[in-house]
Amino acid sequence: MEGKEEDVRLGANKFPERQPIGTAAQSQDDEAKDYKEPPPAPLFEPGELTSWSFYRAGIAEFVATFLFLYITILTVMGVVKSPTKCPTVGIQGIAWAFGGMIFALVYCTAGISGGHINPAVTFGLFLARKLSLTRAVFYIVMQCLGAICGAGVVKGFEKSQYEVLGGGANFVAPGYTKGDGLGAEIVGTFVLVYTVFSATDAKRSARDSHVPILAPLPIGFAVFLVHLATIPITGTGINPARSLGAAIIYNRDHAWDDQWIFWVGPFIGAALAALYHQVVIRALPFRSK
Amino acid sequence: MEGKEEDVRLGANKFPERQPIGTAAQSQDDEAKDYKEPPPAPLFEPGELTSWSFYRAGIAEFVATFLFLYITILTVMGVVKSPTKCPTVGIQGIAWAFGGMIFALVYCTAGISGGHINPAVTFGLFLARKLSLTRAVFYIVMQCLGAICGAGVVKGFEKSQYEVLGGGANFVAPGYTKGDGLGAEIVGTFVLVYTVFSATDAKRSARDSHVPILAPLPIGFAVFLVHLATIPITGTGINPARSLGAAIIYNRDHAWDDQWIFWVGPFIGAALAALYHQVVIRALPFRSK
Amino acid sequence: MEGKEEDVRLGANKFPERQPIGTAAQSQDDEAKDYKEPPPAPLFEPGELTSWSFYRAGIAEFVATFLFLYITILTVMGVVKSPTKCPTVGIQGIAWAFGGMIFALVYCTAGISGGHINPAVTFGLFLARKLSLTRAVFYIVMQCLGAICGAGVVKGFEKSQYEVLGGGANFVAPGYTKGDGLGAEIVGTFVLVYTVFSATDAKRSARDSHVPILAPLPIGFAVFLVHLATIPITGTGINPARSLGAAIIYNRDHAWDDQWIFWVGPFIGAALAALYHQVVIRALPFRSK
Amino acid sequence: MEGKEEDVRLGANKFPERQPIGTAAQSQDDEAKDYKEPPPAPLFEPGELTSWSFYRAGIAEFVATFLFLYITILTVMGVVKSPTKCPTVGIQGIAWAFGGMIFALVYCTAGISGGHINPAVTFGLFLARKLSLTRAVFYIVMQCLGAICGAGVVKGFEKSQYEVLGGGANFVAPGYTKGDGLGAEIVGTFVLVYTVFSATDAKRSARDSHVPILAPLPIGFAVFLVHLATIPITGTGINPARSLGAAIIYNRDHAWDDQWIFWVGPFIGAALAALYHQVVIRALPFRSK
Repeated sequence: MEGKEEDVRLGANKFPERQPIGTAAQSQDDEAKDYKEPPPAPLFEPGELTSWSFYRAGIAEFVATFLFLYITILTVMGVVKSPTKCPTVGIQGIAWAFGGMIFALVYCTAGISGGHINPAVTFGLFLARKLSLTRAVFYIVMQCLGAICGAGVVKGFEKSQYEVLGGGANFVAPGYTKGDGLGAEIVGTFVLVYTVFSATDAKRSARDSHVPILAPLPIGFAVFLVHLATIPITGTGINPARSLGAAIIYNRDHAWDDQWIFWVGPFIGAALAALYHQVVIRALPFRSK
Repeated sequence: MEGKEEDVRLGANKFPERQPIGTAAQSQDDEAKDYKEPPPAPLFEPGELTSWSFYRAGIAEFVATFLFLYITILTVMGVVKSPTKCPTVGIQGIAWAFGGMIFALVYCTAGISGGHINPAVTFGLFLARKLSLTRAVFYIVMQCLGAICGAGVVKGFEKSQYEVLGGGANFVAPGYTKGDGLGAEIVGTFVLVYTVFSATDAKRSARDSHVPILAPLPIGFAVFLVHLATIPITGTGINPARSLGAAIIYNRDHAWDDQWIFWVGPFIGAALAALYHQVVIRALPFRSK
Repeated sequence: MEGKEEDVRLGANKFPERQPIGTAAQSQDDEAKDYKEPPPAPLFEPGELTSWSFYRAGIAEFVATFLFLYITILTVMGVVKSPTKCPTVGIQGIAWAFGGMIFALVYCTAGISGGHINPAVTFGLFLARKLSLTRAVFYIVMQCLGAICGAGVVKGFEKSQYEVLGGGANFVAPGYTKGDGLGAEIVGTFVLVYTVFSATDAKRSARDSHVPILAPLPIGFAVFLVHLATIPITGTGINPARSLGAAIIYNRDHAWDDQWIFWVGPFIGAALAALYHQVVIRALPFRSK
Repeated sequence: MEGKEEDVRLGANKFPERQPIGTAAQSQDDEAKDYKEPPPAPLFEPGELTSWSFYRAGIAEFVATFLFLYITILTVMGVVKSPTKCPTVGIQGIAWAFGGMIFALVYCTAGISGGHINPAVTFGLFLARKLSLTRAVFYIVMQCLGAICGAGVVKGFEKSQYEVLGGGANFVAPGYTKGDGLGAEIVGTFVLVYTVFSATDAKRSARDSHVPILAPLPIGFAVFLVHLATIPITGTGINPARSLGAAIIYNRDHAWDDQWIFWVGPFIGAALAALYHQVVIRALPFRSK
């Protein structure tokens, strides 16, 4: 019997669960006492479209992605405008801006829309059937619109300098191949979406129901950490809305040439994370029920 | 029926709420089972003026704003005094000072005064009728007095250098228009006050009643993030008491010329955040009760 | 009636408490339903001296202060050894080392010794009668011994360079007066000890009994923030054991000349914080019971 | 009687426990009411080998250590590639990468494998009999394999530069002796494993059962802090899998010459932390039961 008690043991895991391999299905019935796996979301859920909370969630995703691009691209511009980096918040400051905004915005919107703010997160959670296709498409559209507006406002502040200085757009840095960039986006998004799945696991939610607001912190840190590592390679996308918004406002060829990397990479990374979580961690395909 | 359960689901939001658009009023009666919307605060509440907790709250706001200006302006002075920025905590260190102090001080004063430490926060919460007009005015006066004293003590440490080096006062940086500065203050304050509303939502409080002390962390991060983005534009106000205190002690014309921006901008940003939260997120105007 | 409910409301504080000024004593009887103010600790408690937990607490304070000085002074040495600061963790990294160690060590030792790791904290809590005089003296001795050993180990790594480079000792920087240094230590320690009192308030403990381990985070941040602000003035003491340990191992005249500042300042700051918390925030002198 | 109440009191510890020295054993029977010390894990537990959760835990350790090396070594390479450090995340950014990844990964894997991600942690917990020898060996093998793969992927990004620039391998820096390096690894690992023991204490788990996910934060900070202090000495190992993975992929003599330091040091440090926690803090040898 695996359950509430086991997971509490950080560091040491005494594994009361003792089912032989291949018979995991049985023990899952015991597990059911501790929490309930929600049923998969339907692909289309007509009732959603007449619900105010559906549109409110879309507005919240729009506003959050708008604020995300506004703060992060403005921080990037502040750093790239300076001839030397020391009198700026530096590359580390940029990484904090991206990670910190995700922390604050997931905290603010988790109860309204689920706090995605990223098409790759929406895609990963859709693959795990945590939301309907209708809602996934609606969220992704609102995220992209919010990102375009956010980057546009930053351009309004910086005018001509915006385009000279790159506008925070993502592209593969000189010295790296397209394959390097794609790989960096895949693994980076895996780190993020894996953390999201760990934080939103039904088992964990049952256990930590009193402290849901803690989950935004590791999710924000995951974004921060991927930026520390991959800003030198691609400027770090791991969020197709962020990459699209910056590219549309920047609108130069070399940003558009690499744009596919920032959609294909994050979607592959999110799919791998969903696969890893559902198959290895949750062992869902091997359950009888 | 929307309620406690829904909000717990970070990442995926299965939306048990299914009321048709425009009929939100009905479902709010169900919601009432989970938590109680506090009644709007009266504009004038005579009983407050004879309560010790009213004056204690004002003293706590004074002390907190004093310590806020003391630590942050001292950090700013340490950075600007150095001819190069590497041997200092840097601009990122300044952003941490502002955000970190708000985290620590909101943690310390939340139970005493509500932990505003910022006239824009007080104004936004007043618009949402979370406190009386009497109390709002009292808080804002105490915050401004505390800020003046805090900046004054820093000047005592730095003497003549204080004025040569700008004294941590806010003004629009060369290369930006007044409109840029006003816009940066509006959106920046929106980020902060939106986070405050998200953290103090009656619905969230009901759900997270065991962990109220977690709310200061995202609020502090919001302040940190806005500083990362807008220090190059205005030095970042988003707090009229901070801007006024620094301007009074610095007392040069170019700081006074822009002072209106650091009152009008934050108050507009706070009003927009209050509007967004009350109308879109909470849908209060559409409720029958 | 003031109580559990009131404090939960971050941001807005609706103040159900309505007693007229000067009659606070009555309402405190109501409060007693929510939590119990522990009785003041006796000055001498003979039973302690035969209790293993008393000695275990002293050992825990020794080990924690040892590790505190070891990590922080080693970080300081790593920064000062480098001719330029960019290839180091920088002054901001030093501030993180001090604040972060306090966070981690308070987390580790809170359940064993109360997690002081600082004679000024011990002194402030003693003034508020939270521990006996015997225990306060024992803690301060163990903290100083731990600090000396920690700084000594760092000297073992750095040999002759240790003394050339200042050994992390505190003294007033050129350009500041002794009075500036004393003032910086007083206000800095006030920030720290005020946060400690806020986190350890009996009322807050009753309310947050499920999450005591969150308190170390704002305490660690308070230390971090004071370092951001006052490293340029005194190197930041706010911890007499840290200043004494570094001074003994460094052992140069200019460190000894200023040593009194790093005892008198923190003790005054801690006393003021105790006074503020007990008189203004808790209104203890005005209670009948 | 020592128990739940005592530990809650941060800052002040009123010590209801009053047993005379040497008679601690009796009072432990009282303690047993509050929580149950889990029995020591057997050396060999045949049942484990037929349990899916055993292999799942190994896979989770592999994936986590893979991601740990990938992000951290990539961050190191981004910093060392740049001729000056200002346009990089800096040494402080490297420390955040190591500490932040441990925070996020321990959060993600705590419920699956216990979240070790480090052979020294596994060794320390094995000494305290928190897991079987079979499991300890399995974890260490999987951690080393994950680390090798993670460093290998980074080499794929950087090609020839990887070896020119050191590949993130650990070795004792010029100006320090092997003894210095060994000492730094011992004390550094002590800090980490001491924090792990504090966070996973059965007594604390009983008390904080609602908030287990908070423990990863101080553990991640411990790793961050040790990196701040000892990157200039050894590049900071305190994790034999991290040191081995980087050394195998880098594969130059000077990294292999010092490799023993990064196994012997962390294992001694972990053993000392286990000893300190079990003997001094938990007083286990002196208990009758």
